[in-house]
Amino acid sequence: MSVHVVGVGSTAFGRFEEASVRTLTTRAVAEALADASCPVGAVEAAFFANATGGALDGQHCVAGEIALESAGLHGVPVVNVENACASGATALHMAYAYVEAGLAGVVLVAGVEKMTASSRSDLFGWLRGSTDVRLFDDPSFTPGDLGALAAPAGVTEAPAATKSVFMDVYAGFARAHMKEFGTTQEQIAAVAAKNHQHSTLNPRAHFRRPFTVDEVLAAQTVTWPLTVPMCAPVSDGAAAVLVCSDEALVRFDRHRAVAVLASVLASGGHRGSARDEHVQRRAARAAYEKAGVSPADVSVAEVHDATSIGELLETEHLGLVEMGSGGWAATRGETALGGRIPVNPSGGLISKGHPIGATGVGQVHEIVCQLRGEAGARQVAGARIGLAQNSGGLVCGEDAACGVTVLGRTGR
Amino acid sequence: MSVHVVGVGSTAFGRFEEASVRTLTTRAVAEALADASCPVGAVEAAFFANATGGALDGQHCVAGEIALESAGLHGVPVVNVENACASGATALHMAYAYVEAGLAGVVLVAGVEKMTASSRSDLFGWLRGSTDVRLFDDPSFTPGDLGALAAPAGVTEAPAATKSVFMDVYAGFARAHMKEFGTTQEQIAAVAAKNHQHSTLNPRAHFRRPFTVDEVLAAQTVTWPLTVPMCAPVSDGAAAVLVCSDEALVRFDRHRAVAVLASVLASGGHRGSARDEHVQRRAARAAYEKAGVSPADVSVAEVHDATSIGELLETEHLGLVEMGSGGWAATRGETALGGRIPVNPSGGLISKGHPIGATGVGQVHEIVCQLRGEAGARQVAGARIGLAQNSGGLVCGEDAACGVTVLGRTGR
Repeated sequence: MSVHVVGVGSTAFGRFEEASVRTLTTRAVAEALADASCPVGAVEAAFFANATGGALDGQHCVAGEIALESAGLHGVPVVNVENACASGATALHMAYAYVEAGLAGVVLVAGVEKMTASSRSDLFGWLRGSTDVRLFDDPSFTPGDLGALAAPAGVTEAPAATKSVFMDVYAGFARAHMKEFGTTQEQIAAVAAKNHQHSTLNPRAHFRRPFTVDEVLAAQTVTWPLTVPMCAPVSDGAAAVLVCSDEALVRFDRHRAVAVLASVLASGGHRGSARDEHVQRRAARAAYEKAGVSPADVSVAEVHDATSIGELLETEHLGLVEMGSGGWAATRGETALGGRIPVNPSGGLISKGHPIGATGVGQVHEIVCQLRGEAGARQVAGARIGLAQNSGGLVCGEDAACGVTVLGRTGR
Repeated sequence: MSVHVVGVGSTAFGRFEEASVRTLTTRAVAEALADASCPVGAVEAAFFANATGGALDGQHCVAGEIALESAGLHGVPVVNVENACASGATALHMAYAYVEAGLAGVVLVAGVEKMTASSRSDLFGWLRGSTDVRLFDDPSFTPGDLGALAAPAGVTEAPAATKSVFMDVYAGFARAHMKEFGTTQEQIAAVAAKNHQHSTLNPRAHFRRPFTVDEVLAAQTVTWPLTVPMCAPVSDGAAAVLVCSDEALVRFDRHRAVAVLASVLASGGHRGSARDEHVQRRAARAAYEKAGVSPADVSVAEVHDATSIGELLETEHLGLVEMGSGGWAATRGETALGGRIPVNPSGGLISKGHPIGATGVGQVHEIVCQLRGEAGARQVAGARIGLAQNSGGLVCGEDAACGVTVLGRTGR
């Protein structure tokens, strides 16, 4: 059994104060259905990714049923799935499982987040509630435990009350990488500058404003070595993906279909023989094995750059660049459009935007557009195999959840 | 491919102020693993049902990864699923799909809720956020739209601020049923008295206190015709179920295994040819068809009596009693232990308790115990086929989600 993507849709990501979860969902779903020439009545099940609706909007439960009812979907099984910032990849993974199980032939995945101008905004409460709370309830813990966290003399960091605790965590990862591999702040800035440049080619991106490496470095420090343009913004947006079984594929345009070669989900924490393998490496290894491809086969990737150090680490864990060389790869332009392995051609989370539940679904939207040759000015020439990597939450100092999706043209 | 339940575990349900989501989860999971003689390291994936952790405890995301890490589970895919009060059945449905898809051989389902003495209790916010908010944000809507809602003269209802909006909704359903079929308040009270009697035989039940029909009727009115003993309490608790594939079954005791003959999930709302069929009827019909059984084959059922009128309606929709005769069936003792079709031998939600995410998983725990002949004083003699029905949320005046599970002895 194979699972195929036959339709994708996405709103722009950005600050849409007047939009609601319902209106954003409706737009993305309508676009995915139109893209597949699929009537809404043909959808047999749906998986819905939304993470902050309880904290920010008071919609604690059944958000999927409610939002999708607005989009015209009624009666079929709807499951609300959540894995913090990896909710999108998780919803896709569930849709993949549902089709593989033979429980439905045509399944919708929708991811959405409405984060700005929320009626009951508790963003910091939400952020804290996306982690292993022991870490932050433990009075003996300081973010310094995650790395050599002292900022250089003269650097003024943003006050803790104004930033996500995840920024401290990522900063800790960055300092550890700098210490171990000699990675520099300039290299992390190069990753950011690349993605901001990419986003200028993406009409759906939140920012679309280029930054030079110097501009990234000169911006306000969040937690050293991370500056504001290295960190994902708070965005609104929705994305949708329609998948189908081999059997149902006859109803769709096979020539525009993209096969899900692998959909893997893994959680953080360690045990047994996997003790020393990072969750992202484990997920990637399983995905490559399932897809029957190697990192060298990947033409284009969308990875979870909630901060630019995230992308740097992820490209290493995914085997797209060598361990420790993520910073050098960025400065050499290897991961830029036109480079050896373009990463985040969409602009990534830092510049395309990061509407939590939509993020992982939006990554798949971008890869599908790339594989179809429909990515316009940011098209990766000859893209044949694409990869999306989506991480969320924090447990035991690792991603609570990490989803890796490998996609390839069905008709290739 | 078949899916088998090879282990079940459950805490008692009740008011456990010192317990946390983690400690409750750990207890239920440990019991399910011990019941299956399964080491935690053999679990390949987990589905976690929890609905109020964001609203009541500030744990908005990745609660499953965090709670299960405490229970010793690390690294494997963990998915947090939510469908309000049907979260438990939904998590089981996902585990069923995952095994059917061949993505894992041994999968854990855990459902948990910690509702009393929460650190940031917003129970009414949660309840409102489990519904189609348009209904309650619409100034033209009054609960009276759901039925002929005027209480008889002389009846004092509990103030709106002290009760869940779901009680008004269920009361509306009750009044409509009374009007259409001549059902009486005494009959609804008979359902409640039966379940409270059943719970006296269940060491895991929240209440374990018998009520006569007269005592149920004499209790405080919540929303007429519902009195306090007809309504589910706020409970803490956790339940866990371990399922496996045919292939993995050789590792377990086949003689204690119970097959999942059907696991069906449906959502409310109407469309096309299904316009006139209630979501519970649609889900039941699909489940019976999949399981290859008829309502007459069912030996024992656990159904979602968030209120006693809920059980009355559900037994009708499930075809366990004739449409309109639910009240008469209860007063004749047909649905009591020793009757034609015992319903809620555990005590049901109103007396065993209703810790949201645990409820649907706990229903399966009870049915598995019944089918194994391990239900002690509340054993249904010769139970061969069992059914669990779990509803959650409200969209367009119907259950947002309804899960129906049909179980039968694997070795039968």
